[in-house]
Amino acid sequence: MRLADLPTPSLILDRGVLTRNCQAMAARMSNHGVRLRPHLKTSKSIDVARLATSGQFGGITVSTLAEARYFAEKGVTDITYGVGLVPGKLDQVAALVAQGVRMTLLTDCPEMIVPLSDGAQARGLTLPLLIEIDSGEGRGGVQPGGETLLEIGRLIDQAPGLSLEGVLTHAGHSYKCRSIQAIELVAEQERVAVTSAAALLRDAGLPCPVVSAGSTPTAICADSLEGVTEMRPGVYVFFDLMMMGLGVCRLDEIALSVLATVIGHQPSSGRVLIDAGALALSKDIGANHFLDKVGYGLVCAPDSTHLMGGLYVATAYQEHGMVAAPDGPPPYENLPVGSRVRVLPNHACMTAAAHGAYQVVDGSDEVIDTWGRVNGW
Amino acid sequence: MRLADLPTPSLILDRGVLTRNCQAMAARMSNHGVRLRPHLKTSKSIDVARLATSGQFGGITVSTLAEARYFAEKGVTDITYGVGLVPGKLDQVAALVAQGVRMTLLTDCPEMIVPLSDGAQARGLTLPLLIEIDSGEGRGGVQPGGETLLEIGRLIDQAPGLSLEGVLTHAGHSYKCRSIQAIELVAEQERVAVTSAAALLRDAGLPCPVVSAGSTPTAICADSLEGVTEMRPGVYVFFDLMMMGLGVCRLDEIALSVLATVIGHQPSSGRVLIDAGALALSKDIGANHFLDKVGYGLVCAPDSTHLMGGLYVATAYQEHGMVAAPDGPPPYENLPVGSRVRVLPNHACMTAAAHGAYQVVDGSDEVIDTWGRVNGW
Repeated sequence: MRLADLPTPSLILDRGVLTRNCQAMAARMSNHGVRLRPHLKTSKSIDVARLATSGQFGGITVSTLAEARYFAEKGVTDITYGVGLVPGKLDQVAALVAQGVRMTLLTDCPEMIVPLSDGAQARGLTLPLLIEIDSGEGRGGVQPGGETLLEIGRLIDQAPGLSLEGVLTHAGHSYKCRSIQAIELVAEQERVAVTSAAALLRDAGLPCPVVSAGSTPTAICADSLEGVTEMRPGVYVFFDLMMMGLGVCRLDEIALSVLATVIGHQPSSGRVLIDAGALALSKDIGANHFLDKVGYGLVCAPDSTHLMGGLYVATAYQEHGMVAAPDGPPPYENLPVGSRVRVLPNHACMTAAAHGAYQVVDGSDEVIDTWGRVNGW
Repeated sequence: MRLADLPTPSLILDRGVLTRNCQAMAARMSNHGVRLRPHLKTSKSIDVARLATSGQFGGITVSTLAEARYFAEKGVTDITYGVGLVPGKLDQVAALVAQGVRMTLLTDCPEMIVPLSDGAQARGLTLPLLIEIDSGEGRGGVQPGGETLLEIGRLIDQAPGLSLEGVLTHAGHSYKCRSIQAIELVAEQERVAVTSAAALLRDAGLPCPVVSAGSTPTAICADSLEGVTEMRPGVYVFFDLMMMGLGVCRLDEIALSVLATVIGHQPSSGRVLIDAGALALSKDIGANHFLDKVGYGLVCAPDSTHLMGGLYVATAYQEHGMVAAPDGPPPYENLPVGSRVRVLPNHACMTAAAHGAYQVVDGSDEVIDTWGRVNGW
């Protein structure tokens, strides 16, 4: 099958680019002497997981318990669920453990320790818990030097049904940096936060075997990861315009795109219409904070990822994308109705989530495989 | 089952509110003497379709051919595909026709008529085509008074394999209005555009049995629909904060919400974390053009749609929503970790699209049914 034979919109994944991205991150983590536990919230695909964990210890990170169930069914046995756990999810966790999965879980709430301990005991479980540390993003996590950290550490260590596994952070504020130097500073802030939290626990006589950090920008830009035991980057497998805007990937490292058909010309508004809109591309416009005239995605030729003169999806309705040129009207003659384009996404995690499968290519227009993914919760 | 027994995030649909919304629109269209062909891109659900078409002629509108296949399997036989058709989709259309569906299709491109005619003939089909009219939105469609309209009309009328069915428009610019009066003007603009296009075709001796219009705001606010034969509103079945911001629905008419669990407190940023983020809510923030401090959705008590003191989802990460209060820190004591909330969406079409099913309630916390929906393409 060729790209021309696919229905549109379709989600296209270049295996060669993906493989190189996985190898580059693996080499980087190996140089740091740090284990790579890829965050599979981006791909939600066992085929991508196999490439991302190739040559690694096999552990992964997930963002939903639906991902955990999917990867468990596919044989993954070491899963960190990277969202704060509440007792209402213990039945789902217990079912995964019963399947033979080592589920590592997350908390930042002292008041959750007793209910989680009670719930684990009631189900005959001993659950490894990481304490989430806020390394500057202000999302989840306790302060790395605060009393709450020690309080939670002591509570977990004493609680039957729970075992203190270590500390975890995510420097998501690296996505807001305006330079590589700024990302390097956030990476060091992330490392210092999580390693000093680990030191605080250890100094109090508490166990802390795992010191987990990582976002794609900090994993790529970190000068030192000393004291960190594992990194959990996610979007590096595909990259996207957001990461290109941040300066942590090149255009030719973006592995994901959306194949679309030109369905109309609208001279009254100076737009070319395509059949990839807000659902197929997502409404994430994060890259526009860094790059001019990106809109909902940059337009490429259908059989490549070469940009078409700066054309971009300026407006996105549910199933209509409206392509504009950076200056003046778009070249209608180069985009006849019925012709095809590929759109590079702002944010690969969000774009992929609307699609049920990847159509896999490898540098040409031949579709060599179809890879599934798991959506929902 | 009760709401408290559901996993989170879950998509909640109130059947009573939905039913009243469907009945109100049906009564409105009946008063106008216009057929209601609901646009099912919002719900993508046969259960919602049954309520929306109850007492109507049974025709529906869809935004994807996946929706068309789904509704055809469920027995719907009169489907308008409301996105400009390209020849590459004729195989999918032919498969639907072979199942006994009358597929009505859309074009605004003179250069598409010969390829569509050739394609229809090659498949032994005669396809009803509507000409898309631009009534002011500047998305798809030809000008209602232009030569292109007549040219397309004549081409279709003469083309074997095609039949000229009429004209269709969508006044999507009604979503940008700042008052009911402004929507009324757009509704009249929509009516005049599509009826004058119909008159132009008829004056030239061309057939034009169908004069199709409709968005939810214009369907609700139109003073007159004289000359229009059918309306295709969509989001009115669920409504959302965008529609409330436009002034075309009340808070208690919003039938859709996302059930979420409080998973953390973050005093450093003054936020309560919930497990409904950018995927469960979508990144659509359209209602913020009309309402202050809506963010990614307004927070309600878990068993109702009563707002909780203006709490809103200020930030949305992939699986984390961060709830803020309009002034000062949120009332942490009212939102303990593990407790639940419901979030009213900005844009029901986008929010529903991330979910595989509706958990149906009817004014209480009892879950009375689960309704499926079709996503993808």
